[in-house]
Amino acid sequence: MKFYTYKTKDTGKEELAIGYAYNEELLYPLSQFDMDFSDMTDLITRITPAELQILNLASRKEELRFLKKDGVIACAPITHPRQDIICLGINYLAHAEESARYKKEAFGGERPYPIYFSKRVNEAVAHGGIIPACQQLVDSLDYEVELAVIIGKDAKNVSREQAYDYVFGYTIMNDVSARNLQTRHKQWYFGKSLDGFTPLGPCIVTIDEFQTPPELAIKSYVNGQLRQDSNTNLLIFDIAHVISELSQGMTLKAGTIIAMGTPAGVGMGFEPPNFLKPGDTVTCEIEQIGQLTNHIQ
Amino acid sequence: MKFYTYKTKDTGKEELAIGYAYNEELLYPLSQFDMDFSDMTDLITRITPAELQILNLASRKEELRFLKKDGVIACAPITHPRQDIICLGINYLAHAEESARYKKEAFGGERPYPIYFSKRVNEAVAHGGIIPACQQLVDSLDYEVELAVIIGKDAKNVSREQAYDYVFGYTIMNDVSARNLQTRHKQWYFGKSLDGFTPLGPCIVTIDEFQTPPELAIKSYVNGQLRQDSNTNLLIFDIAHVISELSQGMTLKAGTIIAMGTPAGVGMGFEPPNFLKPGDTVTCEIEQIGQLTNHIQ
Repeated sequence: MKFYTYKTKDTGKEELAIGYAYNEELLYPLSQFDMDFSDMTDLITRITPAELQILNLASRKEELRFLKKDGVIACAPITHPRQDIICLGINYLAHAEESARYKKEAFGGERPYPIYFSKRVNEAVAHGGIIPACQQLVDSLDYEVELAVIIGKDAKNVSREQAYDYVFGYTIMNDVSARNLQTRHKQWYFGKSLDGFTPLGPCIVTIDEFQTPPELAIKSYVNGQLRQDSNTNLLIFDIAHVISELSQGMTLKAGTIIAMGTPAGVGMGFEPPNFLKPGDTVTCEIEQIGQLTNHIQ
Repeated sequence: MKFYTYKTKDTGKEELAIGYAYNEELLYPLSQFDMDFSDMTDLITRITPAELQILNLASRKEELRFLKKDGVIACAPITHPRQDIICLGINYLAHAEESARYKKEAFGGERPYPIYFSKRVNEAVAHGGIIPACQQLVDSLDYEVELAVIIGKDAKNVSREQAYDYVFGYTIMNDVSARNLQTRHKQWYFGKSLDGFTPLGPCIVTIDEFQTPPELAIKSYVNGQLRQDSNTNLLIFDIAHVISELSQGMTLKAGTIIAMGTPAGVGMGFEPPNFLKPGDTVTCEIEQIGQLTNHIQ
C-alpha cells in the first residue's frame, strides 16, 4: 500500500491519502474513512494493524472517492519530520572508493562500524519541487539517491532478528549535499542540512509489499542521463544491523527516518567532478517505490 | 527573566513558569496570566514583546500566585526540542589541544571554519535528573558544560550585526558524550545522541539580562571537584558568527538550540582519562544562569 500527503488547491491544507493499487494516477483521501490523523507521523505512530488492513482492502476496490493526482499539490509524504533524519555515510563499497578519491584520502578498506550523521529538515521537498542551488554558498551541489526506512513503532534495544518488526515502510530520499560545506566544516551536518536539501517521496510504500531484506534496483538520473545504478542488496551495513545498533541506547521513535546511504555515481565521483547546476533535473528511482524528480533552481 | 518548565505532582502535566526576581525558591506559574502557550517552544515562537514586558514587570511584584520549587517536579526548560540540537565542536582553544592529545591527532592550529554536528534529543534531562551510564555500550562517558543559545524567531540570511536580535535567551547544556562511539563511528552524532545524554537547564534566562556578547564564567564539577573553568569570551567562533553563518541557507527556526562548545577539562583531557562512572554527580555552572546537576546511574 502506498501512502501520500497532498494539498488541495482550494484549502492548502495537508491531507493524507492512499494510492489505488491498479491506477497510479488516483489518490484515495483518508478523510473518507473513520480515521483521524493529524499528519503522516501521527498516522504511522497511531494506526492499528486492523486499520491498515481496512485500508489495504479498500485500496483494491473501485467505489472509493478519489482525486486525480494531477489535480492536487504533491507533498513529501512526511513534510515536517519531528526529528532530524538519521543518515548513513559511505554504505556502498563503490561509493566508498569514489569518495576517497574525491577527498584524496586513503581508502580505508573494511570498516567495522557504520558512519552515522544527521540531516536537519525544516520542510521536506516534494516530488516535482525545487532544490535551491544556493550559489553564493555552494560550489559543489551533489545528489545522492537513498533508500529511506520509516520506523513504525518506538524501537529500543532491538535485536537484528526483530528489526523489521519496527519498519513501517520505505520511501526515496535525495540526500542533497554541498560538498564544499561538508568538507570545510569537518562534520557533515551543515553541508547536508540547507533548506530544500531533502527531497522525499513520492510516497511511503508499506513493508508488506517487499521481500525482507529488500533487494531493489536503485538509480539516479541527471537530465535523463543515468548516473547511479546499483541495488539495495549491496548495502555494507544492512537495515537490520542499523536498527539494532542505533536502538541500543537510543530510542528510534515511530516516524523516524533512516536514510541508508548512496551507491556510486554521485557528482563528486566523476573526474572531473560533475556537480548539479541551475536548470538541471535530477530523478531518484527505487524499484517498487517510484521516482522522485526535482529541479535545481 | 527566567523561564522554567515544571510538572505538578498531582497532574504530571507540563506547565510553564517564570522565576521571581528576588527569590530563587519560588516559581510563578504562567497560567495566572492571560497567555496560553502549549510548551516552551510555543512560548518562544509566539510571545510578543509586550507580553514579555508584562511578565518582566510582574516578576518583580510579590502579590503573584507562586509555587515552591521543592514542591514541583523540575523539567528541562525545553523538554522535547522540535529539531535536533545544533552543536559546535572544538570551540575553545585549550579544549582543541586536549582533544587532539586524546585522539592522538596532530593539533591543526588555526581552523578557518567551525565544526557543526547535531545531537538527537528524545527528551531533555532536567536539573536533578539521571544520566544513564549505558555500560554495555559505553566505556568512556564524558561531560561537557556548554552555553546553549535559544533562537527566538526564525533566522535566515542574518548578518553578524543583526545576530543577537534573533536570540531569546541562554541556558546550560551538558553535552554528554560516549567517546568510544564518537570515535568508532567517525561522525560524532551517535555517540552524542543516546537517551538521557542531554541535560538542559535549569531555566532559560532572557537575553536582556546579559551584556552582548556574554562574558560568563563557565565551569563544571564532578563530585564537587572543579574540572572545567573558563569564560564564554574565549569562544573561538562567537555567537554572532555562528548564527550568521548557519542562517545562510539554513533557516534557524524559533526554539532552535545551539550549543556553543565546551572548554578544556573534560574527562578525556586528563592523563590517564578520567571518565564518569555510576554514582558520580556532575554539575555544570554558568554565571547568571545557574547550576545544572545530574547523577550518573
